[in-house]
Amino acid sequence: MIRAVLLDLAGVVYDGDTPIPGAVAAVERLRAAGLPLRFVSNTTRSPRHRIIAQLAALGVELADEELLTPARAAVEWLRGHDRRPHLLVHPKLEAEFSGLEGSNGCAVVVGDAGEAFNYASLNRAFRELVAGADFLALATNRTFKDADGELSLDAGAFVAALEFASGRSPVVLGKPSPDFFHAALAELNCRAADAVMVGDDAESDVAGALSAGLGAALLVRTGKYRPNDETRFDPAPTAVIDDLAVATDWILSRAAA
Amino acid sequence: MIRAVLLDLAGVVYDGDTPIPGAVAAVERLRAAGLPLRFVSNTTRSPRHRIIAQLAALGVELADEELLTPARAAVEWLRGHDRRPHLLVHPKLEAEFSGLEGSNGCAVVVGDAGEAFNYASLNRAFRELVAGADFLALATNRTFKDADGELSLDAGAFVAALEFASGRSPVVLGKPSPDFFHAALAELNCRAADAVMVGDDAESDVAGALSAGLGAALLVRTGKYRPNDETRFDPAPTAVIDDLAVATDWILSRAAA
Repeated sequence: MIRAVLLDLAGVVYDGDTPIPGAVAAVERLRAAGLPLRFVSNTTRSPRHRIIAQLAALGVELADEELLTPARAAVEWLRGHDRRPHLLVHPKLEAEFSGLEGSNGCAVVVGDAGEAFNYASLNRAFRELVAGADFLALATNRTFKDADGELSLDAGAFVAALEFASGRSPVVLGKPSPDFFHAALAELNCRAADAVMVGDDAESDVAGALSAGLGAALLVRTGKYRPNDETRFDPAPTAVIDDLAVATDWILSRAAA
Repeated sequence: MIRAVLLDLAGVVYDGDTPIPGAVAAVERLRAAGLPLRFVSNTTRSPRHRIIAQLAALGVELADEELLTPARAAVEWLRGHDRRPHLLVHPKLEAEFSGLEGSNGCAVVVGDAGEAFNYASLNRAFRELVAGADFLALATNRTFKDADGELSLDAGAFVAALEFASGRSPVVLGKPSPDFFHAALAELNCRAADAVMVGDDAESDVAGALSAGLGAALLVRTGKYRPNDETRFDPAPTAVIDDLAVATDWILSRAAA
């Protein structure tokens, strides 16, 4: 029986600035059924207030605590470890890290910096790692569906570049880190086995959630989904489903009363 | 008995614009002993005529055929496979690929593009790979010793980024590709077991040469060498030696008469 739902955003609820057909009504049906929700997004090109405003414009109202982002997890990590950040993130995300003046060294924080990725910025981050800084990856996604509908390079490619050159492995803060899924479920007071994840990324959303112990993970054929994605990563999805509307039928038929 | 010598250039013969002490005289001693030489360089920020001119300015004269570069191997590959190149290389290297208008599709060619690495250029190369282009890596070196004396990101980091995002593995044309070492030795009509490689990169020069079957590979403590590099890669160097001058003593004491 399903007692809580984790939803990816980009490619599941919206695509660029457009809601995915049926997705807004699907969220309303999940809420009406009394299922606790968390939105778990690896999008690191937008600050959280912008994501919440974007959802509101689409007709999905959510409270601040319902949105979990890797940036929020990173800020908690930096506070907990008393580190100052060396940021390699999108300029729009930088404000979320303001005021962190840790006195116990530096941590390189890599997100999807977009056009801010260049040789100089990557080399500065590399040199910080060689000098002993901690290494935080907001996400390790390989690709995302870009505004033109094609796949583009996501943060994971640049994390891989720094990992290869420095020989250092990152602490991953977003999906598919088990800690990220577990933090969302702890807030809902729900056991992993009683929760379902819905996403368009067969690796980060689906294999990640199942590896973290979630009872089910549904791969939707929207967003960045490409044919045969369900065969490319282990574990395979619990089910491959057209979109969030149909996934909601699947969930509600298995939900705790 | 050693019958041929392969020498790396940057970090072994020169460092930036400066010869490494004793290196020019060492090359002269190897030549005087009648040992056939090939210079095998993964440097892909300079065209070959510039490398040859740089060596001449330091007092090392070499014939064009004595210098093997990944760019030359890539041009041969593109001609042999009738592919046109999609270049992600240093602007100074682009002229070496002029006139290649293969009619049998496209191959992405990645070298150390330096400042030409940015989000847009990497994403264009990624999209060519997703569309089915071949994938050629001029080199997979992790780092090089930069003009300021510190390590900087080399081509391998960006090859790793594209490999991670695309799920494609490159054909490697420079060191540590066994084909690259074998091509050099074929020109010298020398069996791999009778040759020695000298380099400052424990992975690409040394482990690469030994994996390709060379009889010996010497790691010098110049250039990008950092303490304990000899323990980081497998196979380990035949010997770790201060510089090319001392490596030359080692070689001459084992050379075929």
